[in-house]
This record gives sequence, C-alpha cells and structure tokens, in this order.
Amino acid sequence: MKKAVETIQLNHGSGGKLMHELIDKLFLGYLGKVAENKGDSAVLNLPAAQLAFTTDSYVVDPIFFPGGNIGKLAVCGTVNDLAVAGAKPLWLSAGFIIEEGFPMSDLEDIVKSMAEEAKAAGVIIVTGDTKVVEKGKADKLFINTAGIGNLRDGNTDISTGKRIKPGDVVIINGTVGDHSIAVLGARQSYGFSTALHSDCASLNGLIIQVLNQEDIHFMRDATRGGLATVLCEMSREQNIGIEIKENDIPVKEEVKGICELLGFDPLYLANEGKVVLVVDKDAAPVIVKELQKHPLGKESRIIGEITKDHQGDVVLNTSIGGRRLIKMLSGEQLPRIC
Amino acid sequence: MKKAVETIQLNHGSGGKLMHELIDKLFLGYLGKVAENKGDSAVLNLPAAQLAFTTDSYVVDPIFFPGGNIGKLAVCGTVNDLAVAGAKPLWLSAGFIIEEGFPMSDLEDIVKSMAEEAKAAGVIIVTGDTKVVEKGKADKLFINTAGIGNLRDGNTDISTGKRIKPGDVVIINGTVGDHSIAVLGARQSYGFSTALHSDCASLNGLIIQVLNQEDIHFMRDATRGGLATVLCEMSREQNIGIEIKENDIPVKEEVKGICELLGFDPLYLANEGKVVLVVDKDAAPVIVKELQKHPLGKESRIIGEITKDHQGDVVLNTSIGGRRLIKMLSGEQLPRIC
Repeated sequence: MKKAVETIQLNHGSGGKLMHELIDKLFLGYLGKVAENKGDSAVLNLPAAQLAFTTDSYVVDPIFFPGGNIGKLAVCGTVNDLAVAGAKPLWLSAGFIIEEGFPMSDLEDIVKSMAEEAKAAGVIIVTGDTKVVEKGKADKLFINTAGIGNLRDGNTDISTGKRIKPGDVVIINGTVGDHSIAVLGARQSYGFSTALHSDCASLNGLIIQVLNQEDIHFMRDATRGGLATVLCEMSREQNIGIEIKENDIPVKEEVKGICELLGFDPLYLANEGKVVLVVDKDAAPVIVKELQKHPLGKESRIIGEITKDHQGDVVLNTSIGGRRLIKMLSGEQLPRIC
Repeated sequence: MKKAVETIQLNHGSGGKLMHELIDKLFLGYLGKVAENKGDSAVLNLPAAQLAFTTDSYVVDPIFFPGGNIGKLAVCGTVNDLAVAGAKPLWLSAGFIIEEGFPMSDLEDIVKSMAEEAKAAGVIIVTGDTKVVEKGKADKLFINTAGIGNLRDGNTDISTGKRIKPGDVVIINGTVGDHSIAVLGARQSYGFSTALHSDCASLNGLIIQVLNQEDIHFMRDATRGGLATVLCEMSREQNIGIEIKENDIPVKEEVKGICELLGFDPLYLANEGKVVLVVDKDAAPVIVKELQKHPLGKESRIIGEITKDHQGDVVLNTSIGGRRLIKMLSGEQLPRIC
C-alpha cells in the first residue's frame, strides 16, 4: 500500500492544535527553542544600543535550485543586508506563507536548510509566523525574514555612501550572474540545462575580515538588478561618476555563453553571494588580499573606480575598447529570481 | 475615453527603475523617508538594551473589510504582539508580496492606512521590501510586518506567564468575535451581511495605561483561535487551571446571532483589538477602571479566574448552569482571517 504523502493543510495555519504541532515539531525542532520566547515576541538582549533592521520577502521560483533553496536564500539574503550595512547580524524572524497541500517533507528540507545556514552565519532565528492559504492562492511557499544586527562604532555610516570619494576603487568578491542562471536553468522553461550553482551564501564572515579597516567606504550586496543596479544606485544617490572595466568583471564562461544565447546582460543578473565594496585606493591591494583569503572571496578583484567626471553616470569601458553608459533597468526583468 | 487603471506589473518588483519609482513615490511618500536608511537596512538607536522582536504575515481575505484593511491589520497586529510582551513598540518593517495586475489605487489606499495607523500607534515603519509575482501566483496582496519594541525594566518576564498564580483574575477589554464576523461578512460567500466592524486596533495605548502596575501578571492578544486558544495556551504552558463564566464574556448580540446561524463558537473567533490580561485579584477592580477610561477598553471586565484545581484545563461555566472543558482547536478553522 502506498503511503499518503503528508501535506500542509489549511488547519496548519489556524492557530489551533495542528499549528501548535507544526511549530513544536518542525520549526522549533530545527530552529531551536528560544527560552524567553513564549508569546509572539522574542525578548533579546543587546550589549550596544545601535541597531540595523532589515526585511526581505523571498518568492524564488523554483523553490529548490542548484546551490540552495528558498529557505537558505531567506537566511543568506537578510544576513547579507545586515552585513553590508556594517552590522553584525544577530537575530532573524521568519514568516512562512504556505500553499495548502504543500509537501511536509519539502517544508522540512527547507526549514532544515534555514537552521544550517543560520548556524553557519552565526545568527539565531528567534521568532516566526505561519500562514496557510488555499490551494491556488499562493505558489507553494513564500518566506519573509527580517533581521536585527548590532552596529559597531564607526560603521554606522557605511551604508549611507557618504564616505565615497573620487579616486576610490570598486571591488567585487567574485563572478556575477551565477544565481540567476542557476535558477533559470532549474526552471527548465528556458530550454537550457547547466551545471552552475547559485552563489547563495552568507557574506558576514567574509565582510568581517575587512570591516575593521577604516578604508572601507561603502558596501552593498548585488542582488536583484545585479552589479549594474548597485552601481547605478551609488552614482545616483551620491552624485558621483563610476568607471568600470568590462574585462575586469569576473563572469564564468558558462554564464557568458548562456547570456549570449538568451540575450541577457550578466551585469544585470541577480547574485546572492556578491558584495560590491568601495574602498580607499591605497588600501585596496591589501583589502583584496584579505578578501581572497576567505573561501567566498577567492576571486575578489578591483573592477573600477570613482571619478570626478560624469557625475551621476556609470561608464563601462567595454572589452572591445568602447565606452557605454550603464543605465538603471527600465525594461523587462526576470521575475522571482529571489 | 476611459482611462486605463494603473496596475502593478512584474517590473515593479524587478529591482529596476519602476521599482525605484514605486518605492520613492508610494512607499516613501506615505511612510516617510528615514534619513539613515540608504541601503536595505534601517539604522536604529535604542536607549535601552533589551528588545522584543516579532513577526507576522497577513493574508486576510478580503483585503478590505469593514473597520480596516490588510495594511491597517499588518500594523496593528505587530504593534499588539509587542505591546502584550510588555514592550513599547518602536519600529516596524513591511514586506509586500503583490500579485501582478493589482490595482495601484488599492495599494495606495493600503499603504496610506499603514501610515495612518503607524502614526496613531506611535511607531515608525523604517524598512521594507517589495516582491511582485505573476498573475495567479498569489491572491492579490500579502504583507509581512516585523517589529522591534523596547522592554522596560520589570516587564521582561510578562510574556512568559511565569507570574500567573492561583487566585489571579482574567480580564478582557471588550467583545469577542467582531473581527472574524466582519471579515466573513465581507466575503459574501457566507450568505449574510452585517453592519459589524472589525475591532482591528493598536492596543499599545490602552496597555500603557496599566502596564506600570506590578499587578499585571500576563497579557496576550486574542487573535487567530480567539479567546479560547489564549486560555488553552496559558493553561497548558503554565499548567494552571482556569475557570471562565460564559455570562461574563462580552459578545455582541449580532455576533451571537450569526454564530448560532453558522455554527461557530464566538470564543474561537479571531479578534484584532482584544487583549487578555491576568492580574492580581485585589488590584483587578482598579485595573478594570483604568482600562475603561480608554476608548478601546470601555467594555473591559473580569471574565474568570486562575484556579488550583484542574491544572492544565480551561473550564467554562455555561450560561445555563453547566460546566464544559474548553479545548485547543483541532478541527476545521476559518482560514485567512488575518
């Protein structure tokens, strides 16, 4: 006799007995019980008094992809938002919106990934929520994570971009586009298969290697909209010019090939393990070396610089010797990449 | 010529130009720009060092109902979770998952409600996120809010329930079931119409009236699963007995009538503006009077007491002189009520 597959029922979101069982067995089983958290709020002690606070919802399609799943992504993404703000990520919340009939074993795999990634990143998931909607009213599973980080003295303005000055150089910690191409490949509707893995990773361990250096003037993770969008935001927000060398931007050959095939620009593809750093020119070689010591920073390199000229614009020096403006995306983008 | 209705497009979630416009015009327009918040994280200063942190996703159907909408609910609900933990709610995050084609004007109404409710409750929405999924992949709009509150000294164990002792009395601040019945009525599929409004409200202003009294031993808001679920959780978590008098539980006549018609028990219906307080017996009359001074507490009253007997059980003394056990819900519940 075939055993029925255990799936999520509407009652798992009802506030009643089934929801309590789901929380006790699955969520607290993997994520750990925080003793003080009896009601809906977690009680947290913080040594310092300045915080970073961020949130992201994750709707990636498909929910499992080479190199990760929606749960791992939901931890990494929020950890990274805190880390690039100069904060030490400490606590996460997790809100699940689940479609009725979702396989329990998939949910278990995803929660397990979250627990593993949280442990690896040194953060604790301290509070959560579960809602179940009727079949067809959500696409399998959406996860929201919010995060709190502790901002150390001296880092509190790192996320503003105000420290950026002409002459500074732009660094990235590795290849761009891997996440988008891995997810699109997993969708199977794009007509290609790939051995590529998402770069989905928590970057706080890498960032801490260089964070205590005063020469770090700005950081941002290059997620939705990719490297190009981070550069456009920087130039627009700070009214600075940026020059980037196409030849210096690390892109895997396979990513290049698929981009040519499908008409994508790798600069606009989402990453989930890439940070863009703007650092003092003189300090840059040492910072690159420090980054390269970390497994997630082995391919770190300088890709461009901040200029006095063409304020508010990002200029790409192309591999064939031309120059073109990098613009904020206005046209079609890839939905549900994160 | 009929003007085309402006709707949400997939590109509004792409990380590109349209998303930046949506954030700048709509979200920051209503919710206000927090100066320090340049990246994805908000930077927050906290005078004290002990925090409450909570999250909830809101999937209520329909998204507009008498007395509120999903946006107002998302602010109230998270504010209330912090307030019943004994915290002063300070900051919220807001994550939007929007279905492609959702009317822009509806989104605007909802964000406006959030801004108004946040202002009324004295909290600031400091960080947010927008994701758009394809038509049919989500039901109109889901909102997640996470919240941070400041826990004052002496209140840090109020959410644990450890202070509850036999002889304490149970108070509620008004009628139960209004929210569920208002939402079900708005669904129109239940075959009744009602003039009832949801009790959806931020309770922190009410709670602060009595919070400084040492005699408050426990608080919890009675949302999903209703008053009955809060009582069952209390009795189970603290292994205490609870006796409740049916005649003392405030229920509007119209709610009673619809419950009889549809076979619902008002004790299990969700509320969004009701707090259950467990307080010292001698202090109870003064606390009830204090609560009654506030617009949201006019109908506050004592509904039961904590007993030494029948540990772990909630006993209802019925209006016709009988006694019955109140059990944790295990059967069918009303989905998407919040």
